[in-house]
Amino acid sequence: MSDDVPSRRPGGRTARIRADVLAALDALLTEQGYDALSIEDVADRSGVHRTTIYRRWGSVAMLLVDLLHLGTEDDWRPPDTGSLAGDLTAINRELYEALMVEPSLTTAVIAASFRTPEAAEALSRFWADRYRRSEVVVRRAIERGDIRAGTDAQQLLVSATGPLFHQRVLLRRPITRADADAYAHAALAGVAGPGGDDAASHLR
Amino acid sequence: MSDDVPSRRPGGRTARIRADVLAALDALLTEQGYDALSIEDVADRSGVHRTTIYRRWGSVAMLLVDLLHLGTEDDWRPPDTGSLAGDLTAINRELYEALMVEPSLTTAVIAASFRTPEAAEALSRFWADRYRRSEVVVRRAIERGDIRAGTDAQQLLVSATGPLFHQRVLLRRPITRADADAYAHAALAGVAGPGGDDAASHLR
Repeated sequence: MSDDVPSRRPGGRTARIRADVLAALDALLTEQGYDALSIEDVADRSGVHRTTIYRRWGSVAMLLVDLLHLGTEDDWRPPDTGSLAGDLTAINRELYEALMVEPSLTTAVIAASFRTPEAAEALSRFWADRYRRSEVVVRRAIERGDIRAGTDAQQLLVSATGPLFHQRVLLRRPITRADADAYAHAALAGVAGPGGDDAASHLR
Repeated sequence: MSDDVPSRRPGGRTARIRADVLAALDALLTEQGYDALSIEDVADRSGVHRTTIYRRWGSVAMLLVDLLHLGTEDDWRPPDTGSLAGDLTAINRELYEALMVEPSLTTAVIAASFRTPEAAEALSRFWADRYRRSEVVVRRAIERGDIRAGTDAQQLLVSATGPLFHQRVLLRRPITRADADAYAHAALAGVAGPGGDDAASHLR
């Protein structure tokens, strides 16, 4: 569930301009955060004229919205480690990396989502897409017979990732890799296997 | 871990002014949110002259900071239901109520924390206080022999409450009482008892 937004450069001048502008935005967001950001900065960094940026996006908020759209167009897939414990731990470690890097693009985007309704909606859509793609780790675990067929995939994924976001973004406390692993483990323990066993019992 | 901020009215004119102003702020925050709020509104609602409010607090952000300080002065204690499962579920249900009421003071304060560093710091301090007070539910469970003595109280509490905040505040999805209970249950399942059993096994 990485929040990295890769830059892609499909052919065509319009596509190249978008890629250049969004790559510049990405870099500037992590360097100086959302509040200090202006279209002039993005123009300077990307080498795209600011009137082009104004005409196409109109505001920094809409640039951010487009950056998040770009994030839903990539080919991100959750890790496939062979076990649900491994997959959830790998997801949480990706998140840990995204949240602890300073300055964090993830945190900048979250901050923006509390300032602009368009950014809030785009971020919700981005995350809905990421969590939907992540459901496959739960489906695979059900197919392997590791957990009950009726397991709520979204609830399990939010249970694993939510504490990490909460501790870092809302409580504003540092997180460790051990926290990331512990929250993945706890979420897993909450999911009974088909025989009523914990899927996590082999982790202890 | 309720985020309700009770109004207290200890004696003295200064204390009464503070109580009136902060009660007005509390009401206005839930009615119209942080963005639309002005000192004039708070003055009108509280009946306290705006020059008094400007002199004492200076800005809406500092009013919010003081509201959060007030929240750390109350006598909130986590529920004591006799079991860790009951206590964590009760905490999550309080949170559920605070997060689902529309408009939510909790959400308004979180939004403000992404706009003003002072509000961010005050909110962190408020939550640190709430989570510290909540540690007693873990201590009691250890004393009863329900969970291992070395259990990390903060990690367990964040594991129970974090998914609820995450789903509602960051993912911006609705939450249900069943979600609140499921996240409390999952956190509990992650904590092995002294004999290696799940503390939550009796819940299944």
